[in-house]
Formats: sequence, C-alpha cells, structure tokens
Amino acid sequence: MKRVSFDTMQAEIRRVLLSRGFTEERAGECALLFAEASLEGVYSHGLNRVPRFVDYIDKGWVDIHAVPVKVEGAGMLERYDGKLGPGNLNARFCMQRAIDLAKENGVGMVALRNTNHWMRGGSYGWQAARQGCIGLCWTNTESCMPPWGAKETKVGNNPFVLAVPRAAGSIVLDMAMSQFSYGKLEVTRLKNELLPVDGGFDSEGKLTRDPASIEQSMRILPTGYWKGSGLSFLLDLIAALVAGGWSTRQMDEFKPAPGVSGYGGSQVFIAVDPSVISGGPFTEELVDRAVDYLHQAEPAEDNGRVSFPGERTAQTRQQNLELGIPVDEAIWQKVLEL
Amino acid sequence: MKRVSFDTMQAEIRRVLLSRGFTEERAGECALLFAEASLEGVYSHGLNRVPRFVDYIDKGWVDIHAVPVKVEGAGMLERYDGKLGPGNLNARFCMQRAIDLAKENGVGMVALRNTNHWMRGGSYGWQAARQGCIGLCWTNTESCMPPWGAKETKVGNNPFVLAVPRAAGSIVLDMAMSQFSYGKLEVTRLKNELLPVDGGFDSEGKLTRDPASIEQSMRILPTGYWKGSGLSFLLDLIAALVAGGWSTRQMDEFKPAPGVSGYGGSQVFIAVDPSVISGGPFTEELVDRAVDYLHQAEPAEDNGRVSFPGERTAQTRQQNLELGIPVDEAIWQKVLEL
Repeated sequence: MKRVSFDTMQAEIRRVLLSRGFTEERAGECALLFAEASLEGVYSHGLNRVPRFVDYIDKGWVDIHAVPVKVEGAGMLERYDGKLGPGNLNARFCMQRAIDLAKENGVGMVALRNTNHWMRGGSYGWQAARQGCIGLCWTNTESCMPPWGAKETKVGNNPFVLAVPRAAGSIVLDMAMSQFSYGKLEVTRLKNELLPVDGGFDSEGKLTRDPASIEQSMRILPTGYWKGSGLSFLLDLIAALVAGGWSTRQMDEFKPAPGVSGYGGSQVFIAVDPSVISGGPFTEELVDRAVDYLHQAEPAEDNGRVSFPGERTAQTRQQNLELGIPVDEAIWQKVLEL
Repeated sequence: MKRVSFDTMQAEIRRVLLSRGFTEERAGECALLFAEASLEGVYSHGLNRVPRFVDYIDKGWVDIHAVPVKVEGAGMLERYDGKLGPGNLNARFCMQRAIDLAKENGVGMVALRNTNHWMRGGSYGWQAARQGCIGLCWTNTESCMPPWGAKETKVGNNPFVLAVPRAAGSIVLDMAMSQFSYGKLEVTRLKNELLPVDGGFDSEGKLTRDPASIEQSMRILPTGYWKGSGLSFLLDLIAALVAGGWSTRQMDEFKPAPGVSGYGGSQVFIAVDPSVISGGPFTEELVDRAVDYLHQAEPAEDNGRVSFPGERTAQTRQQNLELGIPVDEAIWQKVLEL
C-alpha cells in the first residue's frame, strides 16, 4: 500500500488550491483540513474528496473567495451567510466564532446558511476540543435516505458531531444518521463481504446485510430505524430555522445538478467552555474517570476492547504520522495532476 | 379496557401528591405532567410511574419542597442545583428558564445537576414548542446498557429530546439511546411476541428479537449499535460537565439503593426562539413544507404512512381526550389507594 507523508499530502493539496486562485492563507487552512481528515483515517472526506471539491470550484458551485458574513447577532447567538464559500473553511470559521463566544461567555451558538459541504464533520468537534471546549455541531444535507416507513429518499444523513475535551485524548463523535454511507456499501461490495449488521432493505423490503441489494433498492437504513429517521428530520429543521436557511427540501429542489452534495445547506455550531463555568463536585477528574469506567466494561468477545468515540482516531493519527498516510494510488495520481 | 378522563386522572394524582405534603401549586403542576404523559400515550412515565414516584418520596430520595437554586450564571448560560427535588418539576423549571432566556436573547442554555428522574422527557420538548421555541434537552441516567463491544452495563440510555414548534402540530422527538426499553421487552414477552427489529443479544452473543433472551443476558442494544453507544457516552459527559454534576458513573456509585432510577443526575436544556432571529428566505413556510415533503414519501407498504416525530402523539392526545385515557386497572386501583 502506498503511503504519503502528512506534510507531502498537505503541500500537494495546497498547491492544487493555489492553482484555483485560493489566497496563500486560505489554501493552507483548507489543505490542512483535507490532509488532517486523511491523517485521522477519514479518507473519504480527506484526500479522496479533493478532486470532487475542485470540480465543484471549476463548475462555479463553490466560491473560493467567499467568507461568512454576519447577518444577525443576538448576544451569544450569531447567524452567518456562507455565501456559498468553501464548506470546510466556512464551518471552521463558524465553530471558531462559537468557541470565541464561549471563551467570553461560557456558551456560543453560531448558525450558518447558504454554505457548501463541510467535508469531515469531526474536524469541527476536534477544533473545539483542542481549545478546551465542548462542541456540538450538525449540518443538513440533500436527501439520501428514505424516512422510516418509506421507500423514497426524502431525508438527509445530516451528520451530528459531539466533542468533549480531555488532556489524555478528547472524545469526539461524528455520526451520520444513516447506518452506513454509500461509500461503505461500495467498499464492502467490492470486497465481496457482508455488512457487519443490517444496512438497509432489499428490493423485497427485507432487512439485509448485502450491500449490492441495498445499492439497488436505494433503501439505506436510518441508524436505529425510526430513531435515526426522526433525529435526521429534526436536525434538518433546527439547522434551517436557526440559520434562516435551506432545509433538505430546498437543497433537493435547488441543487445545481443531480448528485451535487451539500450545496446551500444549513449548519449549527455550539461551543461551551467548561472552565468559564467551572465548579461542581467532580468536574476535574470527571471525564478521565468516566473513560476508565467505560474501559472497564467486560468485553463481549475474547481479546475485545471497548473504546470511546475518537479513541481510534487518535491511534490512527499517530500511526499515519509515523508511517505515512495510506492513499489510493489512482486518487493520489489524480490529485498530482490537478 | 378501562378508561379514565384526563381531569379525573389529574385530580387523583394531585390528591396523592397533596397527601405527601406538596403545596397546592406544585401538586397541580406535577400532576399535570404525569397526567399529560398518559394523555399523550406515554403511559410508562405517566400514571404508571406514580406509585414509584411516591415510593421515592416516602423513602426520602425525592425532596418534595426543593426547588432548583441558581449556582452559576454567565449570560445566556445558567446552572442550577436541583437539590434532589421532584425531577419533573425541576426539569420543567429549567426548560422554562431556557425559554425565558431565549425570548429575550434568541437562545438560552440551562444546566441542572443533582436532580431526580425527569419522567417523560418529551414533556420539556412540548413545553418549548408550545411557547414557539425550538427545544433541545437531554438527561443522563444510571447505567442500563452495555457500551458497544461490551457485555457489561456501563452506559445510560440518556434520553435526548428535540422539538420544533409548528402551528399545525409541533414536531417533537423523545428518544432513549437504547433501541427498546426494558418495559417494552416485558410487554412484548408477555404478549408472546417478537420485537419488530433486533433489540439486543442473547446469551450466546447473537442479535435477537426475542425479548426474554435479552432480559436474561441483560445485553440490551444501543440504538444504531456503536452509534447510540457513542452518543449516549457523549451526552452523559456533556450533561455532567455543563451542569457540574454527576455522570453515569457517579449515579451508579451513589444511588441510594439498587434499582433506583435517575437519582442525582445531570441535565441540559437549550431553547432557541426563531422569532427573535426571524428572517431568512424560507423561514415562515419552511416547517410546513418540510412536513409535506416528508409525507409525500412513497410508503414502503401498501396503506403505509410516513409520519413525523410527535404526529401520533397529537392523535393519541385527541383520542384520549375524547374517549378517556386507557389505564391498567391494577395500577389505577393502586393510585386510588395511595
């Protein structure tokens, strides 16, 4: 397997972005977000996503110079128009604004409308955690999944991110509302494997672990069945209302071409700084001891191990820093040629 | 099936609470929360829960006179000590405080520690929605479910509530992080039925729909497998940190007797008033049109129907107002004798 160093990957993505007219500063920030996603094992939204991101720029769907503009502010709640700028830079900006508000006031809430695909949602959770903040954020998406009880795609997978800072390794959850992504279905099919648990319905309406049947029926499963379906719908509505932006319905209606992902969406970023409101009998050790408690759970399988969200991310990061980041050679070649 | 009118149920619960020393006002508020849970179909946390609630009072675990005391406030973020008062009154108080902050400032966030079981979480979502606010709230609980990869109970089911106001029927999701409650397992077993989808593991570690096997193994399934497990862990930590209160670990350690539920827990309440930050191109019709869009999804089954979270709640409420609330005769008799 080919591996590329973190620095090389970041430099190469930066070069591509500069070639499209990004400023030095924004090319660096944007390349860092992509390279860090791959570094931490989220390959689908790291290097692998760069060609598509550049394609959207070339087609005029992403305005590389746009920055979020504050359209309303009410104390610790602020609302921005993303002006269809690069989704990861927009999201990073808004989470930083929420963190800055939290550092002053304990909590900050920032909503963003009219933005683009934020790429890896976990980035903004880690961003908050690295600065000692609890982070919560989510985005809506165009529809990609049938709501519970339907066979027609009408809700997004609306990733939801929660982060808790911890010196010995932060706890960061980045979950989409589908049990599996279409990317995961494809990878599993190409390996001739079954999904570890049911991932959708086959064309006869039966739950199945066979990825090809699900790709055919397009009935991907909401995580937790009716629960993920409902959560997805609510996250979409709240993001759109708080941001004053589009919901999934409008994203479906106004997308500039079939298959375009994340165009014009709405997002919410919440940060809380526990140190501003420190106190309480157990605050300081609380997270460490909760992690210990979780780790002590008797594993279901011999040699099994219970881990917290983000624990393997930190391990992957370390390994990829040392050994280089594994890349698909065709995709790496494609980026080199962009 | 025996049915009891809403007014009769509320009056009877109120009588019981007065007999335990509640003030007139608090007895009325608390009885309303219980009766309304049953009215809206959440029987497990309505009338059926009253005997246990009264038992906790009689044992001294719930202090009926305690009211939340503000221990810290930083602008739109406030933190309260629930002083082990009645969990539903404490939660109602804190959501109201979040709503009041939102009415003034657009957003309000209130954290509560040292409280008791909040009974039906959806109550506080409906509370926000009835006042035109978006509501988000969650609670931690003592552990009742193994984290993903474990067979030992170490995480709570930590209900999470999201609400969006809508004139033609608000959208309210009230979801625990377990796929099914132990109550649902019991009811299904007594009917000699299978669960509609896998609900846990049997003693051999296989996913199963058989409720008795799950009750035996005590390996109830987190909703969405690893996703619900991770979400549960994060919701617990965030509630405990923001409230400066106990996490699931401490709730396990310090519970006053085995099986006591909700004692000393931590909760978060967030309200957003969209009218304070009104604007955006599609805000006014957005929710109605999103509901229409969802309803238009082609059903998976003939005569099927896609509904939004809270839609059936409103139907049940209307039906139970007209016909009376169905009650288990033994439980009703028990409450009459309290």
